[in-house]
Amino acid sequence: MNKEAQLSTIRLLVENKGDACLICTFVNQYYLTGRLFKGYVYLPAEGETLFFVQREADLPDSQVHRIRKPEDIPGILKSLNYPLPKTLFLEAGQIPYNDFLRLETIFSPAKTGDATALLRRARMIKSAWEIEQIRISAGKHVEAYGEIPSLFRPGMRDIDFQIEIERLMRRHGSLGVFRTFGDMDIFMGSLLTGDNASAPSPYDFALGGAGMSPCLPVGCSGETIHEGNAVMIDFAGNFTAYLSDMTRVLAFGKLPSEVLRAHQLSIDMQARLEEEVREGVTCSSVWRWSLAMAEKAGFGGNFMGTRFRAKFVGHGIGLEINEPPVLTARSEDVFLENMVFAYEPKFVFEGVGAVGNENTFIVHSDGIERLTTFDETIGQLAI
Amino acid sequence: MNKEAQLSTIRLLVENKGDACLICTFVNQYYLTGRLFKGYVYLPAEGETLFFVQREADLPDSQVHRIRKPEDIPGILKSLNYPLPKTLFLEAGQIPYNDFLRLETIFSPAKTGDATALLRRARMIKSAWEIEQIRISAGKHVEAYGEIPSLFRPGMRDIDFQIEIERLMRRHGSLGVFRTFGDMDIFMGSLLTGDNASAPSPYDFALGGAGMSPCLPVGCSGETIHEGNAVMIDFAGNFTAYLSDMTRVLAFGKLPSEVLRAHQLSIDMQARLEEEVREGVTCSSVWRWSLAMAEKAGFGGNFMGTRFRAKFVGHGIGLEINEPPVLTARSEDVFLENMVFAYEPKFVFEGVGAVGNENTFIVHSDGIERLTTFDETIGQLAI
Repeated sequence: MNKEAQLSTIRLLVENKGDACLICTFVNQYYLTGRLFKGYVYLPAEGETLFFVQREADLPDSQVHRIRKPEDIPGILKSLNYPLPKTLFLEAGQIPYNDFLRLETIFSPAKTGDATALLRRARMIKSAWEIEQIRISAGKHVEAYGEIPSLFRPGMRDIDFQIEIERLMRRHGSLGVFRTFGDMDIFMGSLLTGDNASAPSPYDFALGGAGMSPCLPVGCSGETIHEGNAVMIDFAGNFTAYLSDMTRVLAFGKLPSEVLRAHQLSIDMQARLEEEVREGVTCSSVWRWSLAMAEKAGFGGNFMGTRFRAKFVGHGIGLEINEPPVLTARSEDVFLENMVFAYEPKFVFEGVGAVGNENTFIVHSDGIERLTTFDETIGQLAI
Repeated sequence: MNKEAQLSTIRLLVENKGDACLICTFVNQYYLTGRLFKGYVYLPAEGETLFFVQREADLPDSQVHRIRKPEDIPGILKSLNYPLPKTLFLEAGQIPYNDFLRLETIFSPAKTGDATALLRRARMIKSAWEIEQIRISAGKHVEAYGEIPSLFRPGMRDIDFQIEIERLMRRHGSLGVFRTFGDMDIFMGSLLTGDNASAPSPYDFALGGAGMSPCLPVGCSGETIHEGNAVMIDFAGNFTAYLSDMTRVLAFGKLPSEVLRAHQLSIDMQARLEEEVREGVTCSSVWRWSLAMAEKAGFGGNFMGTRFRAKFVGHGIGLEINEPPVLTARSEDVFLENMVFAYEPKFVFEGVGAVGNENTFIVHSDGIERLTTFDETIGQLAI
């Protein structure tokens, strides 16, 4: 029942002087219970966690209380001799304004706090079980990527290749859907080639792509993969609820030498990361030296995009693809033991595509461990 | 630039005594502009629509104003001689509480209104262009469904069959992602067979399914498709931004006669719908006579599920799969010209699966038109 997740959350709740936390988003429910259900998790600073459920749910009977609507909760709390919370934490960064107001009216707390921020902090440090889930995802991710080149046929459009990779990932156990924080749309991952690699997108992914329709402006645009193109494969490893993230590059024909040099720089940056990062290192330092290395090598204008440039070079990962910490100039986070994050220094070249790898790492006290162990060199597509 | 959508929204805004509407969700942006972008659509009751964009966007230059953050908007409005709105409509049913508060602080309106409700009402009545988009989706949906039986091989698990259908839909142009209102997860659609058809899910789809993981409890559960099973195929027709919805049933071997009788009842219910519904008919009446027909035929306990039973038999459809109106007992809506909706009377049988069709209809003044023209009888899977 993810006792460890509940305890981490309660610890933060107490630190922030909250009396209770009421959770209704699926992602936080899953973190706290390992289940999704229609209803609410009630985490008091003192006393047992309670589940208020509106529909059949696989949860411990002794903690489950059936409700028809959230308005039923205070009466049940009273009957159990739980005091109504004076300071109630609600998921202010996730649930719609209307839902927040409804819950606030029901509980009339003297004060509310932000359970979204609280849970994102708690979820940033992974438990042994969570790390094991990410290891499973990364293992299958590596297995699947090995089969990608065999799916390519000359003359394919980017979307044709993407569809075959989607099927491959699904056959290896990808759950299909993966979760993002905020209003983001993406379908399994993105494949970028040619000029489409530089097309900006409204979403906060590292790179964009025009997409197949103005209603989904990300990823493949339907361009044919031409000789001399780099093909960047960036799919989520959603083989468990916990994600791995990995990008690799394939070449169709020969790539220009400066493009190969930029890819080697990305490999060198990954190596430097493995040397430098350990508990206590700041996330902003990684952004700074990454940008400096790109500029020094003459790739400042290619780093993290051309027409639009992402301002981060990595991000935490777990139940969602975009968790804290963010590896960006203004980050105030430091790396801590059992954080899991992705590092993705990428370079875009007009007419060619994007190069650079992305790997998923666990932070240990004395260094980091790479989970996405797939070969980092550019793979070759058969002509 | 979807002038018609902007005008419908402004009409409702004025009716509800609003001075302006500020839109930032992608789905409403797309409705109003045919584009997605990082930024805001500002719709005043009087004056031209303005676009405040934080990143390159394909919108008419004369209406575009670059901003770094939403706090920049009031200054620009002043410089354009737009009054600050006294009553500002924000997407209260979609944007997180924190985002709503931030926008409220920026504009300090005397009053706020709910742009989510406003836009959902506006979007309920489709324009000619929107209907054309749904027609395109439905046409491709029908084409793709014709190829599904050829993908089946005896011995397949539900998920194996699902993955081949996903690829088929993608190759016919499915955009992959489709949008839902609220916290719903689903991957392209659902395939249900055997006992899994009765597994309840926390999501508000008509039927559930246990899913492949507790983190995504919907659809396929990994069961092998056995002789005597019905296989229900319910994928979204997301070939454009505007969705069609269609369910059909395939049989592997011979189905029990009572199951066949329930499927025929679903066909009869679709026929009755086509006879009865026209502008002015209430949505609740359809729920009532659907339930009555199911009960009269002795299928009351199978109708819309067994362990959990959905309380609606249809729903509006457009940019999202779950739009108003809802065909449910407590609906206060009546059918209006140019509404588009799905009707899905379904029956679940333990050990067999689910039967019943789902079709997408347009409401005309004198009746309804079925867009999902695929054969309604149960298809046979080769043994």
